[in-house]
Amino acid sequence: MSAIDATHDPKLASWVESAAGHGDFPIQNLPLGIFSRAGEKPRPGVAIGERVLDLAALAGLLPPEIEPTLAGEALNELLALAPAARTELRRTLSSFLSDARQRSKVEPHLHAAAQCTLHLPAQIGDYTDFYVGIHHATNVGRQFRPDNPLLPNYKYIPIGYHGRSSSVRVSGAAVRRPHGQTKPADAPPIFGPTRRLDYEVELGVWIGSGNAPGEPIGITAAHSHIAGLSLLNDWSARDIQAWEYQPLGPFLSKSFLTTVSPWIITSEALAPFRVPQPVRPDGDPKPLDYLWSVEDQARGAYAITLEASIRTTAMRAGGMAAHRLSRASSTALYWTVAQMVTHHTSNGCNLRPGDLLGTGTISEPVDTGFGSLLEITEGGRRPITLPSGETRSFLEDGDEISFSARASAPGFATIGFGDCRGRVAA
Amino acid sequence: MSAIDATHDPKLASWVESAAGHGDFPIQNLPLGIFSRAGEKPRPGVAIGERVLDLAALAGLLPPEIEPTLAGEALNELLALAPAARTELRRTLSSFLSDARQRSKVEPHLHAAAQCTLHLPAQIGDYTDFYVGIHHATNVGRQFRPDNPLLPNYKYIPIGYHGRSSSVRVSGAAVRRPHGQTKPADAPPIFGPTRRLDYEVELGVWIGSGNAPGEPIGITAAHSHIAGLSLLNDWSARDIQAWEYQPLGPFLSKSFLTTVSPWIITSEALAPFRVPQPVRPDGDPKPLDYLWSVEDQARGAYAITLEASIRTTAMRAGGMAAHRLSRASSTALYWTVAQMVTHHTSNGCNLRPGDLLGTGTISEPVDTGFGSLLEITEGGRRPITLPSGETRSFLEDGDEISFSARASAPGFATIGFGDCRGRVAA
Repeated sequence: MSAIDATHDPKLASWVESAAGHGDFPIQNLPLGIFSRAGEKPRPGVAIGERVLDLAALAGLLPPEIEPTLAGEALNELLALAPAARTELRRTLSSFLSDARQRSKVEPHLHAAAQCTLHLPAQIGDYTDFYVGIHHATNVGRQFRPDNPLLPNYKYIPIGYHGRSSSVRVSGAAVRRPHGQTKPADAPPIFGPTRRLDYEVELGVWIGSGNAPGEPIGITAAHSHIAGLSLLNDWSARDIQAWEYQPLGPFLSKSFLTTVSPWIITSEALAPFRVPQPVRPDGDPKPLDYLWSVEDQARGAYAITLEASIRTTAMRAGGMAAHRLSRASSTALYWTVAQMVTHHTSNGCNLRPGDLLGTGTISEPVDTGFGSLLEITEGGRRPITLPSGETRSFLEDGDEISFSARASAPGFATIGFGDCRGRVAA
Repeated sequence: MSAIDATHDPKLASWVESAAGHGDFPIQNLPLGIFSRAGEKPRPGVAIGERVLDLAALAGLLPPEIEPTLAGEALNELLALAPAARTELRRTLSSFLSDARQRSKVEPHLHAAAQCTLHLPAQIGDYTDFYVGIHHATNVGRQFRPDNPLLPNYKYIPIGYHGRSSSVRVSGAAVRRPHGQTKPADAPPIFGPTRRLDYEVELGVWIGSGNAPGEPIGITAAHSHIAGLSLLNDWSARDIQAWEYQPLGPFLSKSFLTTVSPWIITSEALAPFRVPQPVRPDGDPKPLDYLWSVEDQARGAYAITLEASIRTTAMRAGGMAAHRLSRASSTALYWTVAQMVTHHTSNGCNLRPGDLLGTGTISEPVDTGFGSLLEITEGGRRPITLPSGETRSFLEDGDEISFSARASAPGFATIGFGDCRGRVAA
């Protein structure tokens, strides 16, 4: 597993002024992404405070394994490297950005983040969405099966399904209200714009080196295949989903858009925020052997707090701040990310560098911790009232949904995930 | 829609001797693929009789739009062109291979197919598997719901789900028996090799130019986005599927392997074999407007006959030929390929050049036309006896499954699809 080293020292300071106390991108974070400036090609970069460091411009200064991976417009080749190479990159960057003697050679390659466009960090070969937020699964299941919300397989299998990689976009992409088939009660199905547009708060998982076809990744090796995490919004059209999903699962109700935050928070940066997987309640089955390791149970969960907020057209017009809809911890996930990776490859399925996993919606079992409007409004039956006086059952045109997340632990600098947002258009 | 022209003339003959009367690849076919010879890089080629024509080697002789698309190891750029460009390529190749005066310049670039390795024809961005073989859906549904085999949405929606593009392989790839979780009756789930390994006979659909995000492909335009067809085997582990698929659909029961035949039979080659979509039985709903066009109903189905065969280790040892398991026509599909494309993009989801669709299992409503062992053996309850005296409920190690297909119509040369096969390994 990723080690804690001097790059995590909370007293470490950068000569980049905006990094000091930066809520998301202090020097202890150093997330990886793809950026461009006006008229220039997208290329790899690192966020530090309010700046972006151009990695490709540091040719000759970076570890030799890293340099050949920086020529393209996506991080796939960098993600494909073993974790040790990224650890070495992290140490180099941490030194560059903290040591004042290095400032003169590095500073010319720092750009104001406000002048950078951020892109998808990797070319996503395949996207898989899991469903391991147990409180979300329980809340949703209860709407269909009040006495038996979780299906019998839920506590044995990290449930997931294949998503649509072509429709994954970076934060800021317009959320075009999708059309689709829906089935009114007691009438034939109709085709038109969804009336039950929703969001889902998830973590995205970026796959590192991956595996060859037919060669599963065992649970003890799985963590080394996780390059890092982002925020992920699994936009959902509930009315389309309800009519289409039997018997093969969600399809067009999800594939119109999935949004990710642009920065990959590396497994190396997240090392201090790994915590024990919560003990399963009495009566829950122990995971089958292939999904069980002492180390994963001891350090396989992440202490990350995620928030979702809404800001409507009227709220923007009135100068009102975004309104928080939920706050929940990723410790609410019933399975670890390592368990997802191991299960996914247990049949021989190959994961490739830059593949994306979603965790499933992260909800806590209290109404301030529900990660979707489906849960918050109980399927639309209990609309919420916003500070503007407006009510919402599902999303209206003009609504902007934004996610943020922080990882914190005693004795370490807090790091954040940046922004994952989208505004609904007609 | 693709037009019928002189390239379809059944009297047209090639100077390539093996093309005359070739069941799969006469000069009227000219399918596109990616091949390599020992020690050489994969590159685009065309099958003609028992030879492969090296397209990349014809630089300077092909239409100017085509040439820049031939440099890579996949056909994606060629598939991205408008159909008119592929029609022009087809006419050029048809002329080259039929006109004896062209022989001297073309023949040096013909290779014996037996000495060529065939590869996946395109880099598949996303793979979607449909379920529009209505007799298959009925046969499978009946095993769960004898009185009501089809769910209420089936006759309104071309049902489909996202598949796993990383595990799509070309014909010949080993079928490694996958491990997975299964649930014995009255006992906790276990992890181990599947005991209900099966195949599914499908057509694969290769997407051409595709669409931008948020810009659906209407039903009248959909056919122009279909570059061509292949055979597709949706290998399935029924016991894993039964335990995992609720509520989000098939996942690891399918993602260990999907096999396609290596040659893309182009929409241009298939033009003579387009037939009316069979009239829906009385009482079935008319498709919603966005899925309905007069032209698609009149010419949207394909007259393709598909066969599946099995050959076991004992049959090979005894010198016995493969045993046919089924024969069925693609007119058994309840929705046209154009309807699948239009439905898939109706929410704004973008299809990209080289994306792959599966049609779903093609079965006819007679037991000689069932496209999977699940149907043939009624879920394993009625094992079949092979000519070797062996019985099969599901596939055993060493079994080889092969698919073939032919398209024929009065007044036209029959064309074929080549081979889609795989042998089960432990």
